[in-house]
Amino acid sequence: MGKCINHPDRETSYICMKHNIYLCEECLECRDPDIYCKFRSSCPIYFITKKGFDAPKKKTIEKEPVKEKCTVIFEPEEKKVAVTSGTNLLEASQKADIYINASCNGKGSCGKCKLIIKSGKVESENTSLLSDKEKKKGYVLACQSKILEDIIVKIPEETIEKKLKAAGMGEAATKKLSGLVEKIEPIVEKISFQLDSPTMEDTVSDLDRLKRQLRKRGYDTSKMSTNIRVMRQLTESVRNDHWKVVASILWKKCSSEIVDVSPANDHINSLGMAIDLGTTSIVVYIVDMEDGAILSAASGHNSQAACGDDVINRIVCSEKDGVKKLKKMALSTINNLTKRALNSINADHKQIENIVISGNTTMTHLLLGIEAKYIRREPYIPTVSEFPIIKAGEIGLKAAYYAGVFVMPGPASYVGGDIVSGILYTRFNQFEDLTLFIDIGTNGEIVLGNDEFLMTAACSAGPAFEGGGIRWGMRAEDGAIEKITLDPNTFEPDYSTVENKPARGICGSGMIDLLSEMLLKKVIGQDGKFQIDTDHPRFILFNEEPAFIIETADNIDSEEDIIFTQSDIKSLILSKAAIYAGFTILLEQVGMDFSAISQMIITGGFGQYLNIEKAITIGLLPDIEREKFKYMGNSSIAGAYMALLSNTYRQQAIAISNTMTYLDFSSNYTFMEEFTRAQFLPHTDANLFPSVQTD
Amino acid sequence: MGKCINHPDRETSYICMKHNIYLCEECLECRDPDIYCKFRSSCPIYFITKKGFDAPKKKTIEKEPVKEKCTVIFEPEEKKVAVTSGTNLLEASQKADIYINASCNGKGSCGKCKLIIKSGKVESENTSLLSDKEKKKGYVLACQSKILEDIIVKIPEETIEKKLKAAGMGEAATKKLSGLVEKIEPIVEKISFQLDSPTMEDTVSDLDRLKRQLRKRGYDTSKMSTNIRVMRQLTESVRNDHWKVVASILWKKCSSEIVDVSPANDHINSLGMAIDLGTTSIVVYIVDMEDGAILSAASGHNSQAACGDDVINRIVCSEKDGVKKLKKMALSTINNLTKRALNSINADHKQIENIVISGNTTMTHLLLGIEAKYIRREPYIPTVSEFPIIKAGEIGLKAAYYAGVFVMPGPASYVGGDIVSGILYTRFNQFEDLTLFIDIGTNGEIVLGNDEFLMTAACSAGPAFEGGGIRWGMRAEDGAIEKITLDPNTFEPDYSTVENKPARGICGSGMIDLLSEMLLKKVIGQDGKFQIDTDHPRFILFNEEPAFIIETADNIDSEEDIIFTQSDIKSLILSKAAIYAGFTILLEQVGMDFSAISQMIITGGFGQYLNIEKAITIGLLPDIEREKFKYMGNSSIAGAYMALLSNTYRQQAIAISNTMTYLDFSSNYTFMEEFTRAQFLPHTDANLFPSVQTD
Repeated sequence: MGKCINHPDRETSYICMKHNIYLCEECLECRDPDIYCKFRSSCPIYFITKKGFDAPKKKTIEKEPVKEKCTVIFEPEEKKVAVTSGTNLLEASQKADIYINASCNGKGSCGKCKLIIKSGKVESENTSLLSDKEKKKGYVLACQSKILEDIIVKIPEETIEKKLKAAGMGEAATKKLSGLVEKIEPIVEKISFQLDSPTMEDTVSDLDRLKRQLRKRGYDTSKMSTNIRVMRQLTESVRNDHWKVVASILWKKCSSEIVDVSPANDHINSLGMAIDLGTTSIVVYIVDMEDGAILSAASGHNSQAACGDDVINRIVCSEKDGVKKLKKMALSTINNLTKRALNSINADHKQIENIVISGNTTMTHLLLGIEAKYIRREPYIPTVSEFPIIKAGEIGLKAAYYAGVFVMPGPASYVGGDIVSGILYTRFNQFEDLTLFIDIGTNGEIVLGNDEFLMTAACSAGPAFEGGGIRWGMRAEDGAIEKITLDPNTFEPDYSTVENKPARGICGSGMIDLLSEMLLKKVIGQDGKFQIDTDHPRFILFNEEPAFIIETADNIDSEEDIIFTQSDIKSLILSKAAIYAGFTILLEQVGMDFSAISQMIITGGFGQYLNIEKAITIGLLPDIEREKFKYMGNSSIAGAYMALLSNTYRQQAIAISNTMTYLDFSSNYTFMEEFTRAQFLPHTDANLFPSVQTD
Repeated sequence: MGKCINHPDRETSYICMKHNIYLCEECLECRDPDIYCKFRSSCPIYFITKKGFDAPKKKTIEKEPVKEKCTVIFEPEEKKVAVTSGTNLLEASQKADIYINASCNGKGSCGKCKLIIKSGKVESENTSLLSDKEKKKGYVLACQSKILEDIIVKIPEETIEKKLKAAGMGEAATKKLSGLVEKIEPIVEKISFQLDSPTMEDTVSDLDRLKRQLRKRGYDTSKMSTNIRVMRQLTESVRNDHWKVVASILWKKCSSEIVDVSPANDHINSLGMAIDLGTTSIVVYIVDMEDGAILSAASGHNSQAACGDDVINRIVCSEKDGVKKLKKMALSTINNLTKRALNSINADHKQIENIVISGNTTMTHLLLGIEAKYIRREPYIPTVSEFPIIKAGEIGLKAAYYAGVFVMPGPASYVGGDIVSGILYTRFNQFEDLTLFIDIGTNGEIVLGNDEFLMTAACSAGPAFEGGGIRWGMRAEDGAIEKITLDPNTFEPDYSTVENKPARGICGSGMIDLLSEMLLKKVIGQDGKFQIDTDHPRFILFNEEPAFIIETADNIDSEEDIIFTQSDIKSLILSKAAIYAGFTILLEQVGMDFSAISQMIITGGFGQYLNIEKAITIGLLPDIEREKFKYMGNSSIAGAYMALLSNTYRQQAIAISNTMTYLDFSSNYTFMEEFTRAQFLPHTDANLFPSVQTD
């Protein structure tokens, strides 16, 4: 029991494990981020814990009487949508199929969903996230604005989602994968053969004739079923090309199904699709099932981003609006990417007969339309861990109706199939030497293990490294500051941006650079507090807190300076501390320390731009021999690719998932201690970082 | 090669095996029954044979320009339907969901689809099947009439389908079945259990939790799949009643599937449904899956009858209008019967979780929407013989979506699952003694066998015994003459009718009685030709052929006398000869004769009214010891009931079907000889019928 941070007169047993603050039930119910959590969206809700804790009840809001219809036109694309007056502008944009980034899922705390009202009237909540200049120019936050009449809205440059630098794209990445699989064993096998023509002496049914031929070819038809669709097409299919047919057999765990029979003259080249279903971005590969060649690839933002940056916000949204909404969003992204990838090679979606999906547990549940609500409630139970083979048509994926879908199994609610993919690809589970594996992203999943054990945990790093909860934070899109150094004397920054576009914000690698530079150049102290003179031109007070100007508005033709605030630094420190504490606890569990590690594998989209040295300087990564660090790219798509082509790998994936032991940190008090100890740059225990010279 | 019967100048290789007449391609194409076949609808099309014979091409009919809409009102039910002018009246009735008996499938040859035009104008083809009196009163044949304007039509009493005396109904029939199955093994097994509540120490997914409990109960979950519907419901289902659940497991051939998981407090009593899917009538039983009790039953006409009496007409219709139409008709009959049967016991269709369908090969294909066209084309190949377990929802049966449907396997195109049901029920395949089995109906399927072999054939008896192709023929509905004797001196008939209603026609058993009486009383000779004086009051000429008056119009308040013509006698003789020849050939195949038979089993709806003695007199049944004949009722529904409750019986059914050897008569010249020899009363070889005294 402790005192509520907002209402010191109230005793409560709800505690935020991350910030060690107590919250009363009213605060939990209110869900206002400014009350709910001092660190806004960077604090995942599932860090709040209490024995028997259940979801905060929804507020009952009295509905206003239905009002007139308003028309909203979104420029520059001129998309039009009709809504009732009073509708939230963010919802209206979703209705118009415009997916605006809304990191905080409409809480009004991230300030990312900026729109400009060109004509007509909206009623907006007051916000400190827009400058007076912006307000004068008609800027509003979509999620904080109610539509009152017909309006025309402009989507400003900074709100339009730019092309992501997605990991796993490009020839180099795909080239590395080709050749990984020696023997191709598809999920849906295609077998061509000639049937005997029936005669008065040989009158077995069409289906029996087909099965007889399969038996001759060595297939065990006693375990083979046939679905009604095939039976309905069979009569014509077998006769259409003089009894020459191609049968498609879907292999399941312990049985098989004839899912298609086509005349041989209809023969098409069978394709496969590997999908990396990320919370932020989605990557698809189109693969030739004959030789394993990656024929094309496409990547894009997961349009669920309109419902928030992290999995928790997505689940909250699915509870409010239904799982179907989130399912539809992910499907539309995947199906659009599929279409784009297929167009580039002039192929048809019906050629896709094999699919592997690799994603975290929440993403997988939501894509399949499976309830995810208990993932965020103690004791954090997913509905399904190991998925049976599903047919594409059953879940709405654009492919042959009968395409076999293998979903990478996920061992726990916060360690999913994408991590299993990572292990499958990096193979460290096959060696005696100890490996520490991390996929840095919103969640920061880590695995420690070798050929004897695999221990895993999720660090709840928060979305800081992907730009969430950071005033000028952004993903590694065009214009993101990705590298930065400070002049030791003038603190003048020297930076580069993604694609060398004018700076629009700062992404994860840029923030780590900046934090490390600020520490080394003594702009901040080891506690993260600013310690430069208040009259330095780059040092300002913003909303009453110290901040550092990275770039001035004039230089980039913007309304506002790009700054880095004390709160931003605090968020970053919390995130890196959560990850480092995670490493420590996993090692402690097996009675080891960092010296026992023979390699440290870093994967994930963010990892590719990470400067190892600077990450060690801020205490995100351990201070071990630099040659032990290995960046292995997008291991989620790589593992999916391997499973797509090989049943051996699919079975290995299941075995890996079953081997993994999940450690839950939210109820682990040693973790809380380590987490607190790591909230220092690089760490309260300087002996852990001998190579970092801060004095 | 031979000369076309209609065009003697043309050589052709198409031959009607039954009548031994040649037909040229033009005659085949024309499809006009008067040209096509001298014996009208009594000659099944599949008797036409030729190496490489394919379906007659459709005539190209030039479409008339679209005309105005006409409204058709059907009295007495006042059903209204809008059609374009020029529409056939039979089609209009089908569109209004009024299923009028149309034995010949609209060829205009059976004269059963009589309607009365009350107002408005139709354009009708001239027909000899209506008397002048009838024509004056506004009678038309629906299939021969085009609608020209708004009309009001009355469905006369004689055209309305009356309640059928369906076999397998009534307490006596169902009582006989109860107790046949000792150990109940449903297709969908329901298992209730308590799951462990999850804790922080036990965080396996909902699905794994369920499977773990199943394993504890001894189930092999490694062969168990789960479908996406269940995964989508699972989250709430397991939590709704404190982790107490009922799982439904669908057992397939070599794997199983979790098809439903419900909270224990939703528990409902699981029901099963056995369906006898007859060409003429359909019977359903609703069965308690706990104890096998038959809770209710319903029967009715298969509404496909609107597309003709026999399977060939149904296939022809499915080729013309699409399989979907026939599928919909059978489904609507079954679903209506299901509803009726469930209402009587206050049960819901979602309780039905197990279904067995027993029907002939064509009926089964059409119900499942599977193409049946090659069933009627040499070499007569069905699409499917042994069906996998299907889900009710996949084929549109009103039941739980996931209800497991077992379809009785059929060994050949003309010997189907209903016959396998019959063997399953009568068990003669388990004994050393030889049995001859017949299901008399349109097709007349026969089986000869014991515990060593099962040889089967279909005799193509034609629909005569069910009233088809017989001027006053009808099924055993109310008012059908079912028994008849003739006064040896005056030839005055003494008859009784079904339900003692005024005579409306004559059914199979009545016809056999009549034929036998006419032979014994020497009204006809052994060749079937009339031999009484032409001035006898009961002897008339009708359409230039001799006929016998069974009942005069005055006595029954009808427009016409009920008569029995020379053609009717010819049709009957052909039918009985086909069956007797079938018996002979089967026995010949194994080098035996009738003396080797230790029992003769008769099943099927028609069999129950059959007078054995009279059937022997006309040479339909062999002249063996009378105690060897056994009538076993509706063995199709009985077998379906057994398979519904027991996996042992389901597996036996498959084994029986696989054991059966099918003999095709259409290419069997010995059959043609025997068939010709049997076209005499009782037979050309009098020694075969020592107990029949015709002299």
